[in-house]
Amino acid sequence: MAEGAVRELRRWGVDVSGIRRTKTGRLGIYFLETGANQRASNVVYDREGSAISLAKPGDFDWPRLLAGTGWFHVTGITPALSQSAAHVTLEALKTAQQAGLRVSLDLNYRKKLWNYGKSAPEVMAELVRYVDVLIANEEDIQKSLGIEGDTEGAVQGLTRSVKKAYPNLSLVAVTLRASVSADRNGWSAVADGQKGFFVSRSYAIDDIVDRVGGGDSFSAGLIFGLTQWPGQEAKALEFATAASCLKHAVSGDFNLVTRSEIEALLGGDASGRVQR
Amino acid sequence: MAEGAVRELRRWGVDVSGIRRTKTGRLGIYFLETGANQRASNVVYDREGSAISLAKPGDFDWPRLLAGTGWFHVTGITPALSQSAAHVTLEALKTAQQAGLRVSLDLNYRKKLWNYGKSAPEVMAELVRYVDVLIANEEDIQKSLGIEGDTEGAVQGLTRSVKKAYPNLSLVAVTLRASVSADRNGWSAVADGQKGFFVSRSYAIDDIVDRVGGGDSFSAGLIFGLTQWPGQEAKALEFATAASCLKHAVSGDFNLVTRSEIEALLGGDASGRVQR
Amino acid sequence: MAEGAVRELRRWGVDVSGIRRTKTGRLGIYFLETGANQRASNVVYDREGSAISLAKPGDFDWPRLLAGTGWFHVTGITPALSQSAAHVTLEALKTAQQAGLRVSLDLNYRKKLWNYGKSAPEVMAELVRYVDVLIANEEDIQKSLGIEGDTEGAVQGLTRSVKKAYPNLSLVAVTLRASVSADRNGWSAVADGQKGFFVSRSYAIDDIVDRVGGGDSFSAGLIFGLTQWPGQEAKALEFATAASCLKHAVSGDFNLVTRSEIEALLGGDASGRVQR
Amino acid sequence: MAEGAVRELRRWGVDVSGIRRTKTGRLGIYFLETGANQRASNVVYDREGSAISLAKPGDFDWPRLLAGTGWFHVTGITPALSQSAAHVTLEALKTAQQAGLRVSLDLNYRKKLWNYGKSAPEVMAELVRYVDVLIANEEDIQKSLGIEGDTEGAVQGLTRSVKKAYPNLSLVAVTLRASVSADRNGWSAVADGQKGFFVSRSYAIDDIVDRVGGGDSFSAGLIFGLTQWPGQEAKALEFATAASCLKHAVSGDFNLVTRSEIEALLGGDASGRVQR
Amino acid sequence: MAEGAVRELRRWGVDVSGIRRTKTGRLGIYFLETGANQRASNVVYDREGSAISLAKPGDFDWPRLLAGTGWFHVTGITPALSQSAAHVTLEALKTAQQAGLRVSLDLNYRKKLWNYGKSAPEVMAELVRYVDVLIANEEDIQKSLGIEGDTEGAVQGLTRSVKKAYPNLSLVAVTLRASVSADRNGWSAVADGQKGFFVSRSYAIDDIVDRVGGGDSFSAGLIFGLTQWPGQEAKALEFATAASCLKHAVSGDFNLVTRSEIEALLGGDASGRVQR
Amino acid sequence: MAEGAVRELRRWGVDVSGIRRTKTGRLGIYFLETGANQRASNVVYDREGSAISLAKPGDFDWPRLLAGTGWFHVTGITPALSQSAAHVTLEALKTAQQAGLRVSLDLNYRKKLWNYGKSAPEVMAELVRYVDVLIANEEDIQKSLGIEGDTEGAVQGLTRSVKKAYPNLSLVAVTLRASVSADRNGWSAVADGQKGFFVSRSYAIDDIVDRVGGGDSFSAGLIFGLTQWPGQEAKALEFATAASCLKHAVSGDFNLVTRSEIEALLGGDASGRVQR
Repeated sequence: MAEGAVRELRRWGVDVSGIRRTKTGRLGIYFLETGANQRASNVVYDREGSAISLAKPGDFDWPRLLAGTGWFHVTGITPALSQSAAHVTLEALKTAQQAGLRVSLDLNYRKKLWNYGKSAPEVMAELVRYVDVLIANEEDIQKSLGIEGDTEGAVQGLTRSVKKAYPNLSLVAVTLRASVSADRNGWSAVADGQKGFFVSRSYAIDDIVDRVGGGDSFSAGLIFGLTQWPGQEAKALEFATAASCLKHAVSGDFNLVTRSEIEALLGGDASGRVQR
Repeated sequence: MAEGAVRELRRWGVDVSGIRRTKTGRLGIYFLETGANQRASNVVYDREGSAISLAKPGDFDWPRLLAGTGWFHVTGITPALSQSAAHVTLEALKTAQQAGLRVSLDLNYRKKLWNYGKSAPEVMAELVRYVDVLIANEEDIQKSLGIEGDTEGAVQGLTRSVKKAYPNLSLVAVTLRASVSADRNGWSAVADGQKGFFVSRSYAIDDIVDRVGGGDSFSAGLIFGLTQWPGQEAKALEFATAASCLKHAVSGDFNLVTRSEIEALLGGDASGRVQR
Repeated sequence: MAEGAVRELRRWGVDVSGIRRTKTGRLGIYFLETGANQRASNVVYDREGSAISLAKPGDFDWPRLLAGTGWFHVTGITPALSQSAAHVTLEALKTAQQAGLRVSLDLNYRKKLWNYGKSAPEVMAELVRYVDVLIANEEDIQKSLGIEGDTEGAVQGLTRSVKKAYPNLSLVAVTLRASVSADRNGWSAVADGQKGFFVSRSYAIDDIVDRVGGGDSFSAGLIFGLTQWPGQEAKALEFATAASCLKHAVSGDFNLVTRSEIEALLGGDASGRVQR
Repeated sequence: MAEGAVRELRRWGVDVSGIRRTKTGRLGIYFLETGANQRASNVVYDREGSAISLAKPGDFDWPRLLAGTGWFHVTGITPALSQSAAHVTLEALKTAQQAGLRVSLDLNYRKKLWNYGKSAPEVMAELVRYVDVLIANEEDIQKSLGIEGDTEGAVQGLTRSVKKAYPNLSLVAVTLRASVSADRNGWSAVADGQKGFFVSRSYAIDDIVDRVGGGDSFSAGLIFGLTQWPGQEAKALEFATAASCLKHAVSGDFNLVTRSEIEALLGGDASGRVQR
Repeated sequence: MAEGAVRELRRWGVDVSGIRRTKTGRLGIYFLETGANQRASNVVYDREGSAISLAKPGDFDWPRLLAGTGWFHVTGITPALSQSAAHVTLEALKTAQQAGLRVSLDLNYRKKLWNYGKSAPEVMAELVRYVDVLIANEEDIQKSLGIEGDTEGAVQGLTRSVKKAYPNLSLVAVTLRASVSADRNGWSAVADGQKGFFVSRSYAIDDIVDRVGGGDSFSAGLIFGLTQWPGQEAKALEFATAASCLKHAVSGDFNLVTRSEIEALLGGDASGRVQR
Repeated sequence: MAEGAVRELRRWGVDVSGIRRTKTGRLGIYFLETGANQRASNVVYDREGSAISLAKPGDFDWPRLLAGTGWFHVTGITPALSQSAAHVTLEALKTAQQAGLRVSLDLNYRKKLWNYGKSAPEVMAELVRYVDVLIANEEDIQKSLGIEGDTEGAVQGLTRSVKKAYPNLSLVAVTLRASVSADRNGWSAVADGQKGFFVSRSYAIDDIVDRVGGGDSFSAGLIFGLTQWPGQEAKALEFATAASCLKHAVSGDFNLVTRSEIEALLGGDASGRVQR
């Protein structure tokens, strides 16, 4: 099973040579019950005893794994799994920072996961100190960092508070999901960076095919944008928002859209006309 | 096949010990062609010669079957099948009334079924005399009882007319489906009871997964509410409307949502956000 | 495979006795990647070397094939495939015209197909001279005939230009698709005929099941209408628009709706209520 | 639904213009539970009240329906459904005989169907008097006609008895299924005709895909053979046996194999080698 | 998820009121990769941290749970999961014995499960002391109890050794699977009981649909037989062997065959002929 | 589509960096109709105009592509597609030979492909001169090389003739498929190498899941064996035969079995027992 997951990554061109195999620990899985309309989707996590939750500092040779790379991305799901996984995350972040990599973190708060005795803020607060680009939604920031915006709905106040609390952050990106129903969302994002505060175009997504992976697609698009067009924070934000908007039309976890599809959407074509 | 249906009921905790098996008669079935947008769904009934349509008074030992229960619910589909099935329905209703049970009836008018020589009002008018709680939509009331409201669109006038014609009714609940298209409906309900006339919250259901079973879910929710919170007619109405709203997000005939999902919707969360 | 396609036509009552079988040439196919929301559907044509693209004048005995028929319909896809297929199309149109048939042509411009060295207008301009009823959308007219309307958005100006350039045309029908997203379109049509300029009712199609075949359904509905109710151009237009509106609720290429479903929609019932 | 069945017939080139549509009566259906190994497949018939069971003499204009044809084939399932269906069958057979058609009958004994008060022999005995070619298996002959062979296992004795009892029969064909298990059968047939008693090649069918329709395929193959090669009874028998052998490799009721596949098997290639 | 499993049991009429729900522990699952021919099926267990593996003595109120029942059956899979699950099993067996129930145990040796530090014989040897009817295959006996037969292939020697080592056993049943390939097995069983040593009929199963659950079906059939026909050990053995033979024709874990199907096989009909 | 095929290769760890993409030419495909029992599977090739059939000498930089590799394998399907593809094959073989690689060729005769005007022997005879290890079945040798064995059935005579005609060959491996039916084959192979003439174990494959890819699996296993255990021709032959035997239990073109599964079969376990 785990080998199947590795092969799926390899299919999409991910370098899988750094994956560590262990004798103990399961492959963490989850079950998804897909909602519709007023009925929410429901995730049942089955990650107890998973290999990653059993990982501990020293298990990974971070300097070697990070050698030759320019960016290191981490999700807040890993430190939610267990104390030792949180330690491994910290270890990795420190190594990456020392190695001079750009480091991004998606807070990814998951209420159902934080149950090993620590609250999310107790753990996440320290991790964020080693991060350069922070990605989150409004609830993530409140639940993972304990930071509330100064005014209701004022997302700029929120990002300002985050940057004040963590001056190491060069950019805070916040995705904004307006959930009308399980299959109808508004989708946009903001970025509070070094060049200013930017608000992306807003998309009305009316027939969501699969919203799982929407946030990950945003992170991927943002990292791509920031590395592809250094310093062009607004452009990277728009790219990330468009990429993750399109993810909602793709079934499964992976954002199987091409760069040219994203650029067509950025160019203004949201009409969904058949290409033939 | 019939045994499979019995097992499906048992799966969901229904007491199936009172089901009667016969040597003659088929299992009634129907075929559903699912529509979309402007195209209506289409039901083809195949219930001729079904066991229930062949049932006749005396076939069921009603006093024994109803012993120890507090509520008896009947659908208007049964008396639509055959003269003898109508007689069985009447027999059951009388027994239930005499036994002091609360009795509910969902009119469930089905144009394609009433073809054994009687019109719906000829049969239903008498049945309703033994009922306490009547459930219907506006068309049901007109077609099954021959009662029109006093003004166009004034549902309160309609329920008032029904209660006037049938003073035995303590509560008349009417579901209101605003069909924008095959997969986009408005959904709400009213109840004209002993405590007053109540109008439920209204839901916009924009991507219907399956609307079959919506009315049955309303009935089930209403009976649950009226027995759970006696006398709280408005609360029971809201519970029934929310429960049946959520049914539209579930594929198949059964409303596989939990009480906590219904209460979350009643509590105001119609956003369909992933629970994780 | 080709025999399977022939059988599928025969299933729906199409006379398949005139289909010509050859030893050379493949069955042309295409692949469809279905989009959603902002993500467009994508068609990959795989029609190189197909039997129809290899057809050449003389291959079909047009006088015999057209004998006893009253209408001949052609799609602009055929002349897009190859020079010889364009020649066959011209040969057929001339024969049909001489035989006194009514002749319709759906321009069906497909950017991905025109790659044998001729541009669409170079080929289509001559073909249209033999046509009586022209069917198209706005882009088709521009790309296939090189005709732009006199003002932005003024479709009547466009049909007037077409009729002026091709005085042989008795009717020009233009379908108007307002693509909000891949699964949400507005749908209407106009006809500039002998009795005047008519605008059809407009339909909001909010949850498209499959839009492939929408244009073909319009053509079929229009031909049916014009032959069923000669001279009633407005009525034929409404029938064609309603028929093709309903096609969007049917999966697959074929418009499997009945005449009575179309007439129910024309009669004003777009509510999609279950028929039972 | 019934129209779907008609279309499926038309797909395969069957002339469906003689099918009669009625306002009363269902489309008869059956349910099949597929067995394997020692577990038998199980058929649940749901044919009560079907249109064909309600048919009565005079409903079909047999002289017109049979005009211009050379062969009339009937299955013993029809007279098993109801007394009036049996009368219709008799009416048809008489008309066919008088019209000088060749007439074949497949006895097709179905224990679960004969329940309208007559036993199979009471009805079938008369029908067979109007038949030219009788098709059956050993159990059919015993159960439908009440004829036992003179010795156990001696099929020639059985056909001899049948021909003695019904001198009008020019040929009696008997299929021989050796049921090792639900998916492993031996398959062969004999024909007792005018040119002698012939025994077909025997096939070991070891991984049955679907045996439903095996007998019908035999009938079809035999009729094809006897009309294609008049008087060549052995050749027709071999064709029928090979055709129906191949049916066991095809899922569904229809024998979707080609004449050339049958002839390849007759030519000795039972190896199932990939053709490429 | 766990509720779904409970409902599936209830569907088949199992009393589920004694199932204990806990806040900790997952639902144990396994993955099955189905083999064919020379390729073996492969089971990947994912039962670490499952609720049953976390159960400990005292968690179940055995006297209450066993009250009013006559038979208690246990599988050797439970004590293979964890030390505490083994303790719970022992506790249950002791209570059942003291309550005067008949107690059966299927050894069900699973190599991949015994990994908490004890070998199977260290645990199972004590458990078997509280058992009346032991069910196993030859490998189970060797691996779970460390008992080898006196001669190769002599299963009677093996059961004799088991009964000698455990004089408390009134009957030892051994299933004999002759694995020709993944989808071709011979299947039979023996019982060494109080009335003698019995050998069942042997079945050749040539196209296995699903062999998972074969052993459980044997246990169920044996318990049914021994309670239905007390003292008729040979009859119970034949019933169990036939029932589990038929399981191989059913997809899934449950033996969805009826008593009458089993009795038809016992009556000699292994031909798999269609019942119609 | 072609990118999907590339990704599937990458999933399984194949280095895809040498694949050449062109603007012209389709992705060659084929359609498979799966047979059973006496009914053969049927392949319909749709490879006209495919990119590989349009390839011509000079398109591939063979010296660079082959640098750093030790073995080059070619299939006889490529030169069957077109004259230019045959030229490319020859070009590749010559380059590989000069580079000192070991070169293997699977003759893979496909009657339906050779239709560009050359017969298979006219083309293949020259190609084989540059080959070291030849892989084929008996029909391949006869049809591709025009070589018949000296006696019927004597495969050793056949390989001897081949090696005499092509003294450059160090090893000729011949797979022997005994087609009992479409889903029942015997499977074995021989190798006439430098150490002698070896006959593999023979496998009875009774329920073929998918035989497509059986020959390719043999080639892969043989190349693996000859490189893993140089000079151990018999061992390599047994590995290849066992690997390809197991392929018949896997659906799809790829042999998704592990080395340990192959070695278990080689170790004598062909019982298909569940591994748990």
